[in-house]
Amino acid sequence: MDVLKQRILQEGQHLGRGILKVDSFVNHQVDAPFMMLLGREFARRFGYLKPTKVLTAEISGIAPALATAYALDVPLLYARKTRPITMPAEVYRAKAPSHTKGGAVELMVSPEFLKPEDRVLIIDDFLATGQTILALVRIVQQANATLVGIGAVIEKAFEGGRDVLAHLNVPIESLVVIERFEGERIIFRDPEEQKVSF
Amino acid sequence: MDVLKQRILQEGQHLGRGILKVDSFVNHQVDAPFMMLLGREFARRFGYLKPTKVLTAEISGIAPALATAYALDVPLLYARKTRPITMPAEVYRAKAPSHTKGGAVELMVSPEFLKPEDRVLIIDDFLATGQTILALVRIVQQANATLVGIGAVIEKAFEGGRDVLAHLNVPIESLVVIERFEGERIIFRDPEEQKVSF
Repeated sequence: MDVLKQRILQEGQHLGRGILKVDSFVNHQVDAPFMMLLGREFARRFGYLKPTKVLTAEISGIAPALATAYALDVPLLYARKTRPITMPAEVYRAKAPSHTKGGAVELMVSPEFLKPEDRVLIIDDFLATGQTILALVRIVQQANATLVGIGAVIEKAFEGGRDVLAHLNVPIESLVVIERFEGERIIFRDPEEQKVSF
Repeated sequence: MDVLKQRILQEGQHLGRGILKVDSFVNHQVDAPFMMLLGREFARRFGYLKPTKVLTAEISGIAPALATAYALDVPLLYARKTRPITMPAEVYRAKAPSHTKGGAVELMVSPEFLKPEDRVLIIDDFLATGQTILALVRIVQQANATLVGIGAVIEKAFEGGRDVLAHLNVPIESLVVIERFEGERIIFRDPEEQKVSF
């Protein structure tokens, strides 16, 4: 998605050790109209799979997932990392190692909102190691719902997440794929080279 | 806002001690098209103030704030509660007592995205004690930006947040105001009785 590549080249910053800062339009500050455009692109790519629900993990997945849910005209469901007092005691839960905090975070979803008849599209801001998305997948499986696809705004190919998710046999779509960083330079993968995992 | 009242009457649950569960369409699960409608209503009420940025606190403020930012065609900025590695060391920060977790949480905003020329509209899901919103206000003040208004999806009048914020002399708009609970019954304030704080 060229408009996203351009934006990353203009505003993204490689902080070293594979960490890409996109705080000016994806996390922290969110370019709302641009985010809605990304949501429409996800809807264009996944609409044929007839998702009934978009699932993400708080916090930074919420914006792209809401944009996608709106474009698909379905609800968004975001897994919580701390249990709100309004959540029932029995929940679907799965652990994911925390990239930024160290240790592990637990993702929780109330059984009230994920049913066997649901067709779930997982959307997140980054596809890196794939571990957060894998935890979301386990929650979908606990609910006996159907996973129909996985979408990420930015894929960091060098962290191997796509391989971790390949066995799920669902389409995995990233709006841009970063092949590697060369110092401050961001090298995108050529669209023609993108691996098809389905 | 009648459509929101109806929705709260249908799906909201008073769990006791003033806690309203709206997990089926505001938090956790988000009714995306409905949330965008709420955002357009905020834009209708605050548009004349020409906000340049919508500010909220992660986590549950993100959805209504993104919807509002989109309707106003301005960026959303969400204050972080844990410092991501991409955030600079020097940040605007303010503490708010945590309703659900006990203790206090610290809200952090990068100075990169809040400037003296900004006209800031604060949007949150709930206006209860007003303490989270007050922390956001202190961040706006640290940035020497201009606070132009405060909006909440649901106000719990009995928690007194409106009085806490009145000295700010900006319009405070809640889409619905809950006067009190009577057991499981939710009593809304009559629109005619709504206090005007500006």
